[in-house]
Amino acid sequence: MDIIKELVTTISEASLWGDPMCLERNEYLISEGNIETALYFINSGSLRIFMLDENEEHTIRFGYKDSIITALDSFVKGGKTSFYIQALKKTSYKSISKIDFNALMNKNSRNKDLWKKLLEAFVIQQMERETDLLTSSPEARYHRVLKRSPQVFQEIPHKYIASYLRMSPETLSRLKKS
Amino acid sequence: MDIIKELVTTISEASLWGDPMCLERNEYLISEGNIETALYFINSGSLRIFMLDENEEHTIRFGYKDSIITALDSFVKGGKTSFYIQALKKTSYKSISKIDFNALMNKNSRNKDLWKKLLEAFVIQQMERETDLLTSSPEARYHRVLKRSPQVFQEIPHKYIASYLRMSPETLSRLKKS
Repeated sequence: MDIIKELVTTISEASLWGDPMCLERNEYLISEGNIETALYFINSGSLRIFMLDENEEHTIRFGYKDSIITALDSFVKGGKTSFYIQALKKTSYKSISKIDFNALMNKNSRNKDLWKKLLEAFVIQQMERETDLLTSSPEARYHRVLKRSPQVFQEIPHKYIASYLRMSPETLSRLKKS
Repeated sequence: MDIIKELVTTISEASLWGDPMCLERNEYLISEGNIETALYFINSGSLRIFMLDENEEHTIRFGYKDSIITALDSFVKGGKTSFYIQALKKTSYKSISKIDFNALMNKNSRNKDLWKKLLEAFVIQQMERETDLLTSSPEARYHRVLKRSPQVFQEIPHKYIASYLRMSPETLSRLKKS
């Protein structure tokens, strides 16, 4: 089973998901300087994670239907997050509190292995992302992400994909057509 | 206890470290396209991890005395690594095979927690690194890394720190003096 599905099922079986909640377009799930207290599962809609650098927004991750999202720095380490999570369209989600999540993941050996597999997947994702960021050719960056995350191109508005790929919307349009 | 020390001690107590080995300056521990089979502890010396992008080398990590190093993508996921690990000076190290390491980390609950803590530390490190890469001011990048990893500035030759910080050696010199 896909690891996210396995996680979501494990939380469902423990009846630890909260009630469905909603964000309107452009609303924030969390902002820089806040402390993350939950992990979110997206029922419908889409979100982006971004950081601010000298008033410029850099989009670094996306969330969409059937994926999980959280301010991972604060979720893992505690302390304040450096990131913003914003809805890109009307988004329905449910959440599990960090306290409940950690207790569940420590409950038994199977759940410990599940969290370990998730952390390993995060590590691999982030190494891929680092390689993206250091890849100088816009075309190569585009093809790396298209291959790895085709769903992004179906779920996320063009201008945020361009920000994620560190290219202008015009360059992205050109690459999509070629 | 520091998590790296705890890991090194756990491996020592299980007598799973191999004999000390040596790399001469510029020699490679592993190259792109190879499969990582071990985790390394550095007794003395220093190394860098880099990737190639259109014949340009991007330095992405360092290893030095009392730290661990491995081609983490291949170590975690299997398959071929995208990275090179090269000695920057004569380097003495010892290693544990990936097979032995995984068996040890799965041996009991304490060791599982140790690997989990390490993975969490990797995730946080990589988020810090992503923020570094997206920080446009060279001065801000320099101060972030100086604060986070002061040892780098004692152990690693100037030109590789400049590569890691994505600035020219001249810019780094100017920042160090200011």
